[in-house]
Amino acid sequence: MNTATRKTQEHFGQTLQQVQRLLQRHKLVEGMVHRQDMPRHELVEKLVHRQHLAELSLKLDRLHPADIADLLEALPQPDRLTIWELVRNERDGEILLEVSDAVRESLLSAMDSREIIAAAGRLETDELADLAPDLPEHVLSEVMRGLGEDERAQLQSALSYAEHEVGAIMDFDMVTIREDITLQTVLRYLRRFDDLPANTDKLFVIDRDRGFKGVLPLTRLLLNAPDRRVAEVMARDAVTFAPDGRADDAARAFERYDLVSAPVLDSNQRVIGRLTVDDMVDVIRDDSDVLSLAGLKEEDLFSSIWKSARNRGPWLALNICTAFVASRVIGAFETTIAQLVALATLMPIVSGIGGNSGTQTMTLIIRGLALGQITGGNARRLIAKEMGIALLNGMVWGAALGLIAGWLYRQPPLGLVMMGAMVLSLQVAALAAILVPLSMQKLGRDPAYGSSVLLTAITDSMGFFIFLGLATMFLI
Amino acid sequence: MNTATRKTQEHFGQTLQQVQRLLQRHKLVEGMVHRQDMPRHELVEKLVHRQHLAELSLKLDRLHPADIADLLEALPQPDRLTIWELVRNERDGEILLEVSDAVRESLLSAMDSREIIAAAGRLETDELADLAPDLPEHVLSEVMRGLGEDERAQLQSALSYAEHEVGAIMDFDMVTIREDITLQTVLRYLRRFDDLPANTDKLFVIDRDRGFKGVLPLTRLLLNAPDRRVAEVMARDAVTFAPDGRADDAARAFERYDLVSAPVLDSNQRVIGRLTVDDMVDVIRDDSDVLSLAGLKEEDLFSSIWKSARNRGPWLALNICTAFVASRVIGAFETTIAQLVALATLMPIVSGIGGNSGTQTMTLIIRGLALGQITGGNARRLIAKEMGIALLNGMVWGAALGLIAGWLYRQPPLGLVMMGAMVLSLQVAALAAILVPLSMQKLGRDPAYGSSVLLTAITDSMGFFIFLGLATMFLI
Repeated sequence: MNTATRKTQEHFGQTLQQVQRLLQRHKLVEGMVHRQDMPRHELVEKLVHRQHLAELSLKLDRLHPADIADLLEALPQPDRLTIWELVRNERDGEILLEVSDAVRESLLSAMDSREIIAAAGRLETDELADLAPDLPEHVLSEVMRGLGEDERAQLQSALSYAEHEVGAIMDFDMVTIREDITLQTVLRYLRRFDDLPANTDKLFVIDRDRGFKGVLPLTRLLLNAPDRRVAEVMARDAVTFAPDGRADDAARAFERYDLVSAPVLDSNQRVIGRLTVDDMVDVIRDDSDVLSLAGLKEEDLFSSIWKSARNRGPWLALNICTAFVASRVIGAFETTIAQLVALATLMPIVSGIGGNSGTQTMTLIIRGLALGQITGGNARRLIAKEMGIALLNGMVWGAALGLIAGWLYRQPPLGLVMMGAMVLSLQVAALAAILVPLSMQKLGRDPAYGSSVLLTAITDSMGFFIFLGLATMFLI
Repeated sequence: MNTATRKTQEHFGQTLQQVQRLLQRHKLVEGMVHRQDMPRHELVEKLVHRQHLAELSLKLDRLHPADIADLLEALPQPDRLTIWELVRNERDGEILLEVSDAVRESLLSAMDSREIIAAAGRLETDELADLAPDLPEHVLSEVMRGLGEDERAQLQSALSYAEHEVGAIMDFDMVTIREDITLQTVLRYLRRFDDLPANTDKLFVIDRDRGFKGVLPLTRLLLNAPDRRVAEVMARDAVTFAPDGRADDAARAFERYDLVSAPVLDSNQRVIGRLTVDDMVDVIRDDSDVLSLAGLKEEDLFSSIWKSARNRGPWLALNICTAFVASRVIGAFETTIAQLVALATLMPIVSGIGGNSGTQTMTLIIRGLALGQITGGNARRLIAKEMGIALLNGMVWGAALGLIAGWLYRQPPLGLVMMGAMVLSLQVAALAAILVPLSMQKLGRDPAYGSSVLLTAITDSMGFFIFLGLATMFLI
């Protein structure tokens, strides 16, 4: 148990296996208990059964909420609910915050209103705001009634922001001080707290109206003489955020300036909340989640077949439509193919390589857009560069494939058509790979989402069209 | 200038545009200066020219190193070098640390040994270790000679770890204290520092031999009475790391336990370094980088066509090979296609949908593997679930496409073959989508890298084989 790296991975694997083993035994015993042919042993088995559950329960009590959340994610629905029932009620809230949306839904559906209200009642306002969209209407209003006036206002404000905005992620738990007091007074003031909010690396300095004046990093508080005043020691050029800013921009700022916490100011420069690095890490993780590239929303690994199929349906349907369009392009050339069947054999190579080379270019462009590196000023230069690469690749690989095709079918003109089609379709792919994400961005959409379907639709259809078109012109 | 969100994105966009404008003017003037037909104005223009550069230089001095790095990434090579020359030499080192590997290479190639040595000399040991792999051999040994004995040992130790290991990422800059002193003494000790290392949220408590005893969070130092002893107040159950642990596991632990800094211990439980959240954020960002999915190493947006083509070449070549194999599968059925050309039109639909549905499944599996959610115990259940979804999708979409195909070609048996092929090829795709990443993992390879090529190779070839095979059996 000497290192957390081992703790987190190996240990989590071990825990998962232990839990699976205990669940297995529990189910075996339960199976025996239910069998009617051995009533004599019933009592004994019920005891064993209870003992396993007690062992499991003890194990769960010792785990960090994040670890229990991972455990729940990794278990199929019935086992998940067995474990969920064993978790002490006081911990329900913090665990619900840690699991994915899909798993949270499955856990909430197994709780009654009373349990949900109790769990929600134990959370901070900003945590409650995270949970709120998943709670049933009547439960939410019940929880609202239980809040103080300030907290209710905070919750309503947090809920008024969209999921990707800073206001939806900020917390309300922070330490503020005035600028005209001495560090000694600050130190004395802090000692009255039982604990500081997590990730407190600086105190926020405000005036009488909560107007933001600057920040006092804890290190400056520690390093300076106690008789100095906050105003002399504080930093005035702190990085601050607006509640309607984008969360992923804020996350980039945290990355760029190595922040641990930062104040959120309203339009009158008043401090209304705080961002912390732990929430930003989650934003970064979600931001670069590969799921969205595959057209998937977050999906519970063990959700029902029906639910999963529904989650993946729209994307698949979209793909079927584009595949159908590409197929109709081929259909237009059926008389050509009937005269030279080799074309049917070779055409998927042209369209496939176009799609692939385009995806490489598009990935770089999407990344450059996300990092703000692509502007109107250099877009034209990028197009020229990418088309240059496509020309080079088209000539080299087109020549190679053309030679092989010409030799395979003993028909040199077929090889030339192959090479010409490769060059042209890679040009089209490069152009589409730049223009598709740029247009998405111009239209105010996320260029990462959906670009790949559109690109493949273009490279497939155009690849078939160019190859079969050239063949019709020159070979038939 | 009221919020950093605006500062970071809009402001960066503005800065980039301003710099581009200044560079533009600078180039115009330079062009005039070089034209021989207007010698009279030469002096004036040289002055204007200098003035633009001075303005640029002033602008750069005010920017954060991370912002200059972004600026360099977003400029083509000649402009990039103009800016790089204007950056004050003292800042070279910190900027080199912030840029991507590809851009770093282009900047280093424009510096002479003396400049590189000067820049490297200003860095901390752990920063130097990040830069070292990119430095020329003789420069590195020169820099090594300039280091003290301790620092040289640290650098050598850091260089002895692989890039993905904790030891390569840890820094050596930390504050350690003994457990038998009072908090008052700690406070007095800290005031002797000019500054604490970045991201210091806790002090490490050690014994005489640097043996790790626990951590003293700054908040506990602030909240407790000054006459208490460190041993009474410190946390003994701190999360620690081993230098040979995986960096991405450590990053997950930082995420999971909301850490800001944590000690790295050797096998004798001695403190040898420190991990901080800013480095972990970079690991998370790289970890989920979309580039590797497209088979790309980090690439400079403005590198030469030749260099880029070489970077993307191997992946493209691999794809051409798999496309060629799929094409040979079609080639085996040329006599079938010659008898029924509609097959050539319809076959890309079958292979395309298989690839797509397989990619969805594989994305979920790769993510589940990364999160440690998939074990031997639940793999079989996942296979059953995914094949169930594939069966459902195959029947629904297969029936729809079968109806359309049968109607388009007035040939109901063709529709039935289409439907059967969809069902079967989606089954194959689901199976491959699970087994490919699982096998990669078993072989100790990163399941995210290269799995998609292998999957597409299987779904393409098998899609064509199943569809054309069924057609040969039932339609010819």
